Amino acid sequence: MSKLTTVSHKDDTRSWRERWYEIIFEADTPAGKLFDVLLLIAILLSVLVVMCESVEAIREEYPKLLVRAEWFFTLLFTCEYAMRIVCARRPMRYIFSFYGIVDLLAILPTYIIALPFFEGGRSAQRLAVIRAIRLLRAFRIFKLAHMLSEATALRQAIWSARAKIAVFLSSVLIAVVIVGSAMHLIEGGRENSEGQPIHGFDSIPESMYWAIVTMTTVGYGDVSPTTALGKALAACMMILGYCMIIVPTGIVSAELAHAGRKGLTTQVCPECMAEGHDSDATHCKYCGGKL
Amino acid sequence: MSKLTTVSHKDDTRSWRERWYEIIFEADTPAGKLFDVLLLIAILLSVLVVMCESVEAIREEYPKLLVRAEWFFTLLFTCEYAMRIVCARRPMRYIFSFYGIVDLLAILPTYIIALPFFEGGRSAQRLAVIRAIRLLRAFRIFKLAHMLSEATALRQAIWSARAKIAVFLSSVLIAVVIVGSAMHLIEGGRENSEGQPIHGFDSIPESMYWAIVTMTTVGYGDVSPTTALGKALAACMMILGYCMIIVPTGIVSAELAHAGRKGLTTQVCPECMAEGHDSDATHCKYCGGKL
Amino acid sequence: MSKLTTVSHKDDTRSWRERWYEIIFEADTPAGKLFDVLLLIAILLSVLVVMCESVEAIREEYPKLLVRAEWFFTLLFTCEYAMRIVCARRPMRYIFSFYGIVDLLAILPTYIIALPFFEGGRSAQRLAVIRAIRLLRAFRIFKLAHMLSEATALRQAIWSARAKIAVFLSSVLIAVVIVGSAMHLIEGGRENSEGQPIHGFDSIPESMYWAIVTMTTVGYGDVSPTTALGKALAACMMILGYCMIIVPTGIVSAELAHAGRKGLTTQVCPECMAEGHDSDATHCKYCGGKL
Amino acid sequence: MSKLTTVSHKDDTRSWRERWYEIIFEADTPAGKLFDVLLLIAILLSVLVVMCESVEAIREEYPKLLVRAEWFFTLLFTCEYAMRIVCARRPMRYIFSFYGIVDLLAILPTYIIALPFFEGGRSAQRLAVIRAIRLLRAFRIFKLAHMLSEATALRQAIWSARAKIAVFLSSVLIAVVIVGSAMHLIEGGRENSEGQPIHGFDSIPESMYWAIVTMTTVGYGDVSPTTALGKALAACMMILGYCMIIVPTGIVSAELAHAGRKGLTTQVCPECMAEGHDSDATHCKYCGGKL
Repeated sequence: MSKLTTVSHKDDTRSWRERWYEIIFEADTPAGKLFDVLLLIAILLSVLVVMCESVEAIREEYPKLLVRAEWFFTLLFTCEYAMRIVCARRPMRYIFSFYGIVDLLAILPTYIIALPFFEGGRSAQRLAVIRAIRLLRAFRIFKLAHMLSEATALRQAIWSARAKIAVFLSSVLIAVVIVGSAMHLIEGGRENSEGQPIHGFDSIPESMYWAIVTMTTVGYGDVSPTTALGKALAACMMILGYCMIIVPTGIVSAELAHAGRKGLTTQVCPECMAEGHDSDATHCKYCGGKL
Repeated sequence: MSKLTTVSHKDDTRSWRERWYEIIFEADTPAGKLFDVLLLIAILLSVLVVMCESVEAIREEYPKLLVRAEWFFTLLFTCEYAMRIVCARRPMRYIFSFYGIVDLLAILPTYIIALPFFEGGRSAQRLAVIRAIRLLRAFRIFKLAHMLSEATALRQAIWSARAKIAVFLSSVLIAVVIVGSAMHLIEGGRENSEGQPIHGFDSIPESMYWAIVTMTTVGYGDVSPTTALGKALAACMMILGYCMIIVPTGIVSAELAHAGRKGLTTQVCPECMAEGHDSDATHCKYCGGKL
Repeated sequence: MSKLTTVSHKDDTRSWRERWYEIIFEADTPAGKLFDVLLLIAILLSVLVVMCESVEAIREEYPKLLVRAEWFFTLLFTCEYAMRIVCARRPMRYIFSFYGIVDLLAILPTYIIALPFFEGGRSAQRLAVIRAIRLLRAFRIFKLAHMLSEATALRQAIWSARAKIAVFLSSVLIAVVIVGSAMHLIEGGRENSEGQPIHGFDSIPESMYWAIVTMTTVGYGDVSPTTALGKALAACMMILGYCMIIVPTGIVSAELAHAGRKGLTTQVCPECMAEGHDSDATHCKYCGGKL
Repeated sequence: MSKLTTVSHKDDTRSWRERWYEIIFEADTPAGKLFDVLLLIAILLSVLVVMCESVEAIREEYPKLLVRAEWFFTLLFTCEYAMRIVCARRPMRYIFSFYGIVDLLAILPTYIIALPFFEGGRSAQRLAVIRAIRLLRAFRIFKLAHMLSEATALRQAIWSARAKIAVFLSSVLIAVVIVGSAMHLIEGGRENSEGQPIHGFDSIPESMYWAIVTMTTVGYGDVSPTTALGKALAACMMILGYCMIIVPTGIVSAELAHAGRKGLTTQVCPECMAEGHDSDATHCKYCGGKL
C-alpha cells in the first residue's frame, strides 16, 4: 500500500514537472504560448526599466519606482530560472547551455550591486564598476532568443554559406586595410587653409575606421577626404562598397532558394534510412530502393 | 401598370447605382479607368496644395487661391465620399473599412477648422491644434491605396514571410539594445578637448538612436563615437548592419520565387499523373495527354 | 551598256553605304568593333575636356588647348552624325530616334555658342545662358547608350516588373509625404538652446527632402531631428527604409530568375509553332505534339 | 653502388621538395592546414605591427619592439618566399604570377628602407618616400589571397555576369556625369546668407564626387545642395540610387542560382537517360539504376 502511494506520489511529481516542462520549454500548448507571451512582455518591460534608469530626468523623478520595478523583474526572472532548473530533464546541461547562462546573467547584476561590498564609500572607480554592472542588465534582451525558434532555417542557410561569407568578409578586410593605408599616405598630415591640422587620417587604424564608415555606406561625415586624389580614391571605394553588397545577398539568396528546394524533401528511404530526397524522386538516390 | 412603372423605376435605380459602382469601385471599364486617373490627379493636386500652404513664401503671396483650391478639393472628395456610400452594396461595411475611414479623414479636417469654435480668439494652443488638424489633410495621400491593386502578390509574399521578418526585426532590436548600452557605457559622459561635454550617448535611448542610425547605414553624423574603443565597436556594428540587410532580402527573394513557382503549378495530368505544369498549359508536357 | 554602268554604279553606292552601315551601326564585324572602341574613347575624352573646362585652374592654364580639343571632337562627332544619316536605311527615322537626337545634341552646343548672337556684349544673363549651353555638352555621355546592347535582358526584366516597381515607388511616396508632414508638425519652428531657430523642417517640402534623405539611407546630416519624439519617428523610418529595399530587390531577382528559366526554352513546336516550352518538356504544352 | 646512392639521393631530394610542396601550396593534408593557419596568423600580426607603427603614441613608446617585430616578420616571409621558389614545380611561373609578386612585395619594402641610400641626410622629400615605402608593407594583407580558394564559385559568377555589371557601371557613370553637370549649373557659384561662397559644386569633377557620395547612399554631408531645385534633383537622384542597387543584386542572384543549379547536374542515368541528379547521388532518382 505504501509502495503504491510512493509510486503515485512519484508519478505526481514527475507529471507535475513534465507539465511545467511543457509550459516553460515548449510553445505548442495554449499554456506554453501564454507563458511565452507573458515572458516576452516581462523582458521588454524590464529592458524598458533599465533604459528609463539611464535617462537622468526620469531617474531623478521616479527613483523609488524604478528600484522597485527592478527588484520585481529580478525576482520574477529568478523564479523562472529556478523553475527551469527544476523542470529541465538534464539540469546541468541547461545551466551551462547558452540560454542557461543568459538567464543567469539576466538576474545576477541586481544581486551583485546589492552586495555589502558595493554599499561602502562610493569612489569614482567603484561607481564606474557599478554602472557597468547595471548596464549588463540590458543584456536581458538576449532572453528573447528563447522565442526565436523560427530562426532555425535562417541559421542553417547562413551556416551553410559560412565559407563564402568568410571569403566576403576577408575581401572587405583586405580592401579596408589597403584603402586605409593609401588614404593615410594621401591625406595624413594635411592642414586646412588656416594652417590647422585636419585630423581623421593621422594613423592607419583611424583611416581604416573612415574606410569602414565609407564602404558600408554609413558615411558620418566626421572624417572626409579633402584632397582631389583622396576624393577620387574615396569615390572608387564607395562604388566598390555599393557593388560589394550584392555578393553576400546573392549568396544567401541562392542558399535560401536551395534550402527551400531541399526543404520540400521529407521522405526517408525505407531501405537505407537516408534523408534529403528531392520531392520528385521515386527512388532513393543513395541505394536505389523504392521510396 | 403602376406596378410595372415601379419595377422599371426600381430597375433604373439599381442599374444607375450599379453603373456608378462599376465606375467608382472597379477599374476594368474605360469609365472606371478614367475615374481612377482623374481621382489620382485630384489627390496629387490636393496634396500639392497642402504642401504649398506649409511654405511661408507661397502662403503669403496667394492666400485666397490656396483657400479656394482647398475648398474645391474638399467638396470634390465630399461628393466622391457621398457617391461611394450611396453606391456601395453594403454602405456600413464601406464606412468602417480602411478605405472608408481614409476617405472620411481626407475631408474632415477642412470642415473642423471651419467650425465656429475655431473662429474666436486665436490663442497659441488653439493655433497648434489647428495646425495639427490642417496637416492631417496630407494623409489624403493614403487615398492612393485605392489604386494599389497590384500590391496583392507583394503583400502575400511579405505576409507569408512574416515569421522570418519578425525574427529579423527581433535580431535588429537585440543588437540595437546591446550596442546602445555598450556605447552608453563607453562614450557616455565624455568631454572634448576644451572640457565641454559631448552629448549623444547620455542615456540608453539616445545611444539606441545612434545605433539605429548607424546600423541602417543612414549615418547622419550628428552623433559619432570619439574614443578608440567606441570607434572599433561602431566599425563592427556597421559591418554587421551592412551584412544583415542580406538576410531579409534573401528571405523575400526566396518567398517571391517560391510564390512564382507555385503560381505555375496546379494541375495534375489525368493520364500520367505528372504535376508541375505551367498555368497556361493545355497538354501534359511529359506524355502529351489533354489536361 | 550605259544602263549596266548605272546599275553597277548603283550597286557600288549601295554596297559602299551598306559596308559603312555595318561598321557604324553594327558591332559584329572587326571593323564595327574597332569603330565602337574608337567612338567610346572619343566620347570619354570629349567629356573629360568638358570636365576640365569647368575647373577654373585648368581653364586658365590651357585656354587654347581646350578650345581646340573641343572643336576637334565637335567636328569628329559632326562627321559621325553625317555618316549615320547618309548610311541609315531610313534617315528620318534615325534623326528622330532617341539616338539621333542624342547625337545631334552632342554637337549642337558648340555651334550655338559660336553664333554671332553670343559674340556681342557679355551681360551676366547672356553668360549664364552660355554656361548652361556649354554644360549641355556633358550630355554627350549619353552617346554611350549606343554600346549598351547588353542591357536588353535587364530592360525587359525591369519593364515586366514595372507595375510592381510603380507600387513600390507609390509606397515610398506615401511614406515620404506622411512622415514629412508629421516631422514638420513635430520639429517645425523649434529653437536651439541659444534661442536661434533650427531650420530644416520649416515646410512640408523641406521635411519631405529630409524624409527622402533618411529613407534612402543617404543621411547627409545637414538636417536631423532634435526632439525625442522626432528621433523616435526618424528611427522607425530608418528601419522602414532599411527593410523596404528588400522589396524591389526580391521582385527584380524573381523576374530575372524567371527570365533565366524562360530563357532556357529555345524549341518551337513543329505542329502549332508555339514557343516558350520548358527545357525538360518532350511534348508541346499547347497542342500535345511531340517536340 | 654510387649510382644507386645518387638515385636514392635524388629521390630523397624530390620527395623532400614534393612533401614541402604539399605543405606550402596545398591545404588538404593536416601539415598543409597547419601551415596555412600559421601563415594567416603571421600575416595578420605583421599587418598589425605596420598599423601600430603608424600610431604616433605607440611608435614613440615601443620603438625598438616594433623594429624587431618588423624584421622578424620580414625574415619569416623571406624564408617562405625562398621555400616557395625552391618547391614550386615551375619557379619562374610562380615568381611572375600574381601571388609571387605579392609575396615579393611583402618583403621588399623593409629591405629597401634599410639600404644605405636612405641612411643619409633626411630631407623632407626623402622622408615622404620612406613613408610611402613603409606603408606599402600593409599590402602584405594581399597574401591572404592564398587562402581564398573558396572564392572560385563567386569569381565565376561575377565573371559570367561581367557584361551586365559593365552595363550597370556604365549607367551609374552616365547618371553621375549628367547629374554632376546639372548640379554644377544649379548650385555652382552660390553664396550663403553672409555673402561667403559655398564650395562643393565649383567644378564638374567636384559635383561628380558629390553625385557619387549621394548615389551610393554614403552621404557624408560635407557637400549638400542648398537651393530648392538642387534639393529636388538630389532627392530624385537618391531614389534612383536606392532603386539602382537592386539591379546588380538581381543579376548576381540569378547568376549564382543558375550556377548552383548547374553545379548539381552533371550525370546522365545510363538506364533511363534522365538528367538532373544531385552531385551526391549514386542512383538515378527516377528509375533507381546505378549512376
